[in-house]
Amino acid sequence: MLFNRPKLIITTLPKNKCKPFISELVKQRLIACANVIGNVQSMYWWKNKITTDAETMVIMKTTNKKIKGIKNFFLVNHPYETPELIVLNVHVEQKYLEWMIKETDNNE
Amino acid sequence: MLFNRPKLIITTLPKNKCKPFISELVKQRLIACANVIGNVQSMYWWKNKITTDAETMVIMKTTNKKIKGIKNFFLVNHPYETPELIVLNVHVEQKYLEWMIKETDNNE
Amino acid sequence: MLFNRPKLIITTLPKNKCKPFISELVKQRLIACANVIGNVQSMYWWKNKITTDAETMVIMKTTNKKIKGIKNFFLVNHPYETPELIVLNVHVEQKYLEWMIKETDNNE
Repeated sequence: MLFNRPKLIITTLPKNKCKPFISELVKQRLIACANVIGNVQSMYWWKNKITTDAETMVIMKTTNKKIKGIKNFFLVNHPYETPELIVLNVHVEQKYLEWMIKETDNNE
Repeated sequence: MLFNRPKLIITTLPKNKCKPFISELVKQRLIACANVIGNVQSMYWWKNKITTDAETMVIMKTTNKKIKGIKNFFLVNHPYETPELIVLNVHVEQKYLEWMIKETDNNE
Repeated sequence: MLFNRPKLIITTLPKNKCKPFISELVKQRLIACANVIGNVQSMYWWKNKITTDAETMVIMKTTNKKIKGIKNFFLVNHPYETPELIVLNVHVEQKYLEWMIKETDNNE
């Protein structure tokens, strides 16, 4: 069922904003879990200069039905004007998928 | 050929269990290589509380024909009751794919 | 349009070679941005022995039309004989995609 298809989401956040942002996503059961990779160096053009910035990278697991809610959450809460919200299709084991569905069920 | 299709696998493990688990996967030539990201903070619900836990994240490269063997290995050896075993379809260069196939060939 | 399809690229590099390699990819606008994860432990077979090596993992975002140029860049500049160049199909928000396209436009 497309509805419960497992998804991986990747975003980056400033270090000081990461924990409250991610815990709210978990609290609202928009994601089943998140892994925060600290000390990531990001490199990109910024005002005509190649810039390096310290960020955290966050890898989240959720199901297809939560994607719309997550997009709205990002629009309202992500500190960047154009936040990275990368969504990947993944395969997981049935038992793990059942755990993901249970953890993102708001009637928990 | 589907049989040799390249795959990326992501899992998380407790720090103290990671090295033996991954080296056995390499030793049995179930994976071509693994990258271990230490100091990952994982966040999820645990017994009605949002919990943060220090883990390692492991990114492994293998081919489609090894997936079944990897799933069995996880069932027997992974320390978690419902381990994360995320499989992604990827594209790689031919020369790298040939290296992956050679490294996961048990007649090596 | 396939041409502008968003892509995620993963590679690994020795620590001392990473920054110049990635900044040149950004400078040439072959990628929109890169996230460098330091202190990754890589494990694989090397001359009949399981070897562990300290590397950096780099996660890059770009569009489909840049992939050919990136492959050529890797052939000429990557320090490994058989470099890892893992390409994944991803979904991103329209505004972020427009930013990616702008950042990889050489007429910038």
